[in-house]
Amino acid sequence: MNIAIVGAGNVAWHLAQALQKAGHTITAVYSRNKAHSEDLTKHLPNAVATQELDLTTIVADVVLIAIPDAALPGIAEQIKVKPETIVAHTSGSQPLAVLSTIAGANYGVFYPLQTFSKHSPVDVKQVPILIEGNTEATIDQLEHLAHTISQKVERVDSGKRKQLHLAAVFACNFTNHLLGISQELLRKANLPTDLLQPLIQETIKKAANHNPYAVQTGPAIRNDQNVIDEHLRLLQHQPHLQAIYQALTQGIQATKGNNYSSDQST
Amino acid sequence: MNIAIVGAGNVAWHLAQALQKAGHTITAVYSRNKAHSEDLTKHLPNAVATQELDLTTIVADVVLIAIPDAALPGIAEQIKVKPETIVAHTSGSQPLAVLSTIAGANYGVFYPLQTFSKHSPVDVKQVPILIEGNTEATIDQLEHLAHTISQKVERVDSGKRKQLHLAAVFACNFTNHLLGISQELLRKANLPTDLLQPLIQETIKKAANHNPYAVQTGPAIRNDQNVIDEHLRLLQHQPHLQAIYQALTQGIQATKGNNYSSDQST
Repeated sequence: MNIAIVGAGNVAWHLAQALQKAGHTITAVYSRNKAHSEDLTKHLPNAVATQELDLTTIVADVVLIAIPDAALPGIAEQIKVKPETIVAHTSGSQPLAVLSTIAGANYGVFYPLQTFSKHSPVDVKQVPILIEGNTEATIDQLEHLAHTISQKVERVDSGKRKQLHLAAVFACNFTNHLLGISQELLRKANLPTDLLQPLIQETIKKAANHNPYAVQTGPAIRNDQNVIDEHLRLLQHQPHLQAIYQALTQGIQATKGNNYSSDQST
Repeated sequence: MNIAIVGAGNVAWHLAQALQKAGHTITAVYSRNKAHSEDLTKHLPNAVATQELDLTTIVADVVLIAIPDAALPGIAEQIKVKPETIVAHTSGSQPLAVLSTIAGANYGVFYPLQTFSKHSPVDVKQVPILIEGNTEATIDQLEHLAHTISQKVERVDSGKRKQLHLAAVFACNFTNHLLGISQELLRKANLPTDLLQPLIQETIKKAANHNPYAVQTGPAIRNDQNVIDEHLRLLQHQPHLQAIYQALTQGIQATKGNNYSSDQST
């Protein structure tokens, strides 16, 4: 397929190169900042760098819009494509309908579920790509395109994508904050911040292979009120950490009824 | 060294076999339940299974007590050893002093910082072992013993071990609960529960190599109130999840001042 990319950031960087490697031709890369698009077109022998959102002169079966979520509605209003072109965005949090204003086009979502940084390599084959489209034919074509770069392609509509985004906030954004708190506590105790790494790795592995509620350990699930009180005392000058500790302790205790297993090895 | 083990659960199981593999002799395994100690002594050619806490007749330079935290004070009161024996417990949350009642003995802590399950193999070499003791000589001997099975040995006193335990509750117990919530949300949306695995793996990897506060992403750190409100609306019938969402969102926003980086690639 001939593909044009709108955006030259982290997602554009990895998708464009994965698509080219899979045999597709990247014909153009749009960025407001020409230096950014040229950084990327250097790696794409058939692509021109453009600062023009009228893409009717570009050869493209698909235009992929890979820009920050907040910029998407504004770009969608300005973009122009040939009527036979499919336009798809790569955002997790924006609905399909944000592209409905693009005159004549078929439109969809092509959402790679991963966090990308330009200079760290990602095995795109392992990255789930979530597909949505305004017609069955559009979905088919985007699905076909996704399968050429990833082994994990799923149809997910905007409603489900919203639930997925919420799940990702818990599993990734919030988890990252807990790991930050943990490192802060280790630093304050003059302990190496990597001391918990083996335990963290094992926790993630276990949670992937079981229902996490069933393998929950620690003072909350044991109702060990002495330890809980002592922890809250240790956090007495950090009200945000106390609030997080209490909310999670109560959450864990609320799961006890239906999902608790007696496996209390740690 | 000659070592006796009190307990035949997950920790005893892995420690006893790692110590034997390192060239030590396990001379006895105590368990209230004889079938449990015999399960373990089957793998230890020189060990007897015993139901007796008077260990004065057992040849042992070190007695390791690897039993549930709550049972430790009771066992410590009953145990008897020869005066030259070192007694150490393997608990993360119990202080050194819980062993101070054992007549004549030197005592310490030999705490392997990992979650163990009998039937899943653990590379003990990579497990940090945290050492404490009532005398410098005891610490030296326990440290020496720990180095024979692990590459990561640290001296950590009871006060620091308490801080470490608190950090582990955030990084492991609470993280596990967030992963449980995330799987619950995916299940409710009829999405595969492993869909977020690549993103979770990348989150953990990133947090290990950076200050997590500096690589925080998501609606909380972006102050994206529309998304936050929508998420709270989606959770309206799950007050525990709402409370967790709000506490973590406020916690993330509170870190914004000093540690926030502008890297907002996802």
